[in-house]
Amino acid sequence: MITPIKYPEKKDWESLLKRPTANFDDLDGVVKTIIENVIKNGDKALLEYAFKFDKANLSSLKVSEEEIAASENEITEGLKQAILQAKQNIEKFHKSQLIKEEAIETQPGVLCWRKSVAIQKVGFYIPGGSAPLFSTVLMLAVPAVLAGCKEITICTPANSEGKINPAILYTANVLGIKTIFKVGGAQAIAAMAYGTESIKKVYKIFGPGNQFVTYAKQLVANTQVAIDMPAGPSEVAVIADKTCVPKFVAADLLSQAEHGKDSQVLLVSPNESVIQEIITEVEKQLQELPRQEIALEAIKNSKFILVTNLEQALELVNEYAPEHLILACNDTLNLSTKVINAGSVFIGNYSCESAGDYASGTNHTLPTNGYAKNYSGVSVDSFVKKITFQQLSKEGITNIGKTIELMAEAEGLIAHKNAVSIRLK
Amino acid sequence: MITPIKYPEKKDWESLLKRPTANFDDLDGVVKTIIENVIKNGDKALLEYAFKFDKANLSSLKVSEEEIAASENEITEGLKQAILQAKQNIEKFHKSQLIKEEAIETQPGVLCWRKSVAIQKVGFYIPGGSAPLFSTVLMLAVPAVLAGCKEITICTPANSEGKINPAILYTANVLGIKTIFKVGGAQAIAAMAYGTESIKKVYKIFGPGNQFVTYAKQLVANTQVAIDMPAGPSEVAVIADKTCVPKFVAADLLSQAEHGKDSQVLLVSPNESVIQEIITEVEKQLQELPRQEIALEAIKNSKFILVTNLEQALELVNEYAPEHLILACNDTLNLSTKVINAGSVFIGNYSCESAGDYASGTNHTLPTNGYAKNYSGVSVDSFVKKITFQQLSKEGITNIGKTIELMAEAEGLIAHKNAVSIRLK
Repeated sequence: MITPIKYPEKKDWESLLKRPTANFDDLDGVVKTIIENVIKNGDKALLEYAFKFDKANLSSLKVSEEEIAASENEITEGLKQAILQAKQNIEKFHKSQLIKEEAIETQPGVLCWRKSVAIQKVGFYIPGGSAPLFSTVLMLAVPAVLAGCKEITICTPANSEGKINPAILYTANVLGIKTIFKVGGAQAIAAMAYGTESIKKVYKIFGPGNQFVTYAKQLVANTQVAIDMPAGPSEVAVIADKTCVPKFVAADLLSQAEHGKDSQVLLVSPNESVIQEIITEVEKQLQELPRQEIALEAIKNSKFILVTNLEQALELVNEYAPEHLILACNDTLNLSTKVINAGSVFIGNYSCESAGDYASGTNHTLPTNGYAKNYSGVSVDSFVKKITFQQLSKEGITNIGKTIELMAEAEGLIAHKNAVSIRLK
Repeated sequence: MITPIKYPEKKDWESLLKRPTANFDDLDGVVKTIIENVIKNGDKALLEYAFKFDKANLSSLKVSEEEIAASENEITEGLKQAILQAKQNIEKFHKSQLIKEEAIETQPGVLCWRKSVAIQKVGFYIPGGSAPLFSTVLMLAVPAVLAGCKEITICTPANSEGKINPAILYTANVLGIKTIFKVGGAQAIAAMAYGTESIKKVYKIFGPGNQFVTYAKQLVANTQVAIDMPAGPSEVAVIADKTCVPKFVAADLLSQAEHGKDSQVLLVSPNESVIQEIITEVEKQLQELPRQEIALEAIKNSKFILVTNLEQALELVNEYAPEHLILACNDTLNLSTKVINAGSVFIGNYSCESAGDYASGTNHTLPTNGYAKNYSGVSVDSFVKKITFQQLSKEGITNIGKTIELMAEAEGLIAHKNAVSIRLK
């Protein structure tokens, strides 16, 4: 089924690594109509869409306190403990990102510093339906709470009975989030961006979603709202050599492939027999998967590439800029220092992508679609603005006044110069 | 001429503080045509636009080494020293933003860390013409060089003689940047986003510009390129009380007003006579300005607001979220700790905005248009991606394996679970 690509020439890398382009043209009309309807009709539009798209006949958009409280009894003790352990690890790692910076005296009397201040109002979109991503609640809420965001809103679609998956509610509640709405799709993004009677507008919207959600986020980001990052299908690249465990690698590739038919899977290896062993394992493990149909489709579009050595493997992967990169090969720690473009890196045979997806402590909201070249994954940084401060004494302005005057004058901005001259007099 | 607004009610703040909405509808066709032309015709299109818009008949788009070298003799020794002092201060402050984070063991055998890696290719747009912003070269290039960006490209329009302002070339050269192109406007943004024969495409575009540039940046940001932040007219808010020096405050307001007719100027004070004194000073100083016509227009749209006390002044300013905030009042250090939404804050009577615009050390590329609620100004952070890494030992995966299995199963992602189970066996 899978045919490896052998020793591709460097000039062909770009086309080899090209991702399918998302085409939002078909969605443009639908999504814009939804956004305009939400702006105009508010809650009424949201209730109608819940009925239309989610088959949910809702009496209220907001999840009640009773529903939140009940979630505790609707999931197993084991799952609760799992969520709590994951939360603890994610907290421990993200806490290390809270850094207090010292003030710097750039010249005598010129003191500059920077302070992180939480974005006050943030909103999370959490997919529901067949894959209720309560893990994403953890990945967004933990850094938001650490950053000190004042208002956290969650939108997630209800099922046809008007209910939200209890694991989502339990996780939100554990993090102190009680402002949860039964709203999905592009309409949820519009509601958080512009506000309705029930849903207050937020300053930044986070979270994954289908094409409608993704395109709606892109549209609202052109107005006053910020978004976490542009989105695309999830993806993994694995660099493997003869020190890898082929069945582990195969399992990792499949765990990516089951996300969606458009998931991207890339294996790069300097060892042809290793590639063959992994392919055999992929085909074997695929048989047992409940989401076999989805994974099969993704695997068909996957690429298994034979290269000359590990250095070239890494060069190719840096060009591809994968969301997830697994290093299942020799000398991983050295190789990992040469990673330039990747969202999150998994080092060694026991670091599976699932670990980072759920519980190791790193964030799973990561740049896809080649955006690892210019975007970071979500972290505490994503929930703060870093405000700069400066305090100049009379001595300070005297020390840099001449410099400012000369530069302002050379830029033709005389009022800028005057603001200094008047103080130097 | 200027009439203060007295004690506005809180319910009216939103409309009082509303900024004029930029309407890009008129530009849409023009800018899209320019972008498509650059994608299709590359350098040829750029040369034609240089002739059409800048009246420059160029033989080559790239600034030659001779031109760069000559710039050293085309500006005064004084200006050179000024640029070097500003560079030193900006370097000193931005260097403190380079932080190496420690690895965290979230569970025994689960090691997570984060590393900043430079965005490899960045492009700067530097306005030319009447305001050649060589200070912006400093503000972008200093953090880019500190971050370790490998390829730095500058686009800036030539004058009708086909020349670039020597201060721009000198500043770029001091920072080791030699890849400079005589290209302005939306066509420069298109060239850096998509590449031409001469100009290599970049991963992130920075820098200010007119409406065409701003809109082109917004459009290309919907494709593979990142941009520094959305842009709007420059703005300042000043909180002043009786401890301020009215003529200093007036000079600060005017230094903002001279930027453009659409600049935003806001004065908030609990003291009516102080407001009157500042207005008198503004009207007096305005008479002497070369850019009087521009400043006058901006001042007409400015707001001088009387409030009940300093706390309320800050509350109102946090609601407005100014790019620059000057605190010319009592108890500034305490007040400054309560700033939630601002790009950069200037504390006390000797901290004029010009200081931060040029030479104190902080960055002058800051969020405008209310974006201080959800964006930070440019810093070293803007030039890196923070990649996460994780390394699990056999003990590590054993410690968190059960958690991952349970969570993956609850999300219906069995291949994710398998990737762990196969390792635990």
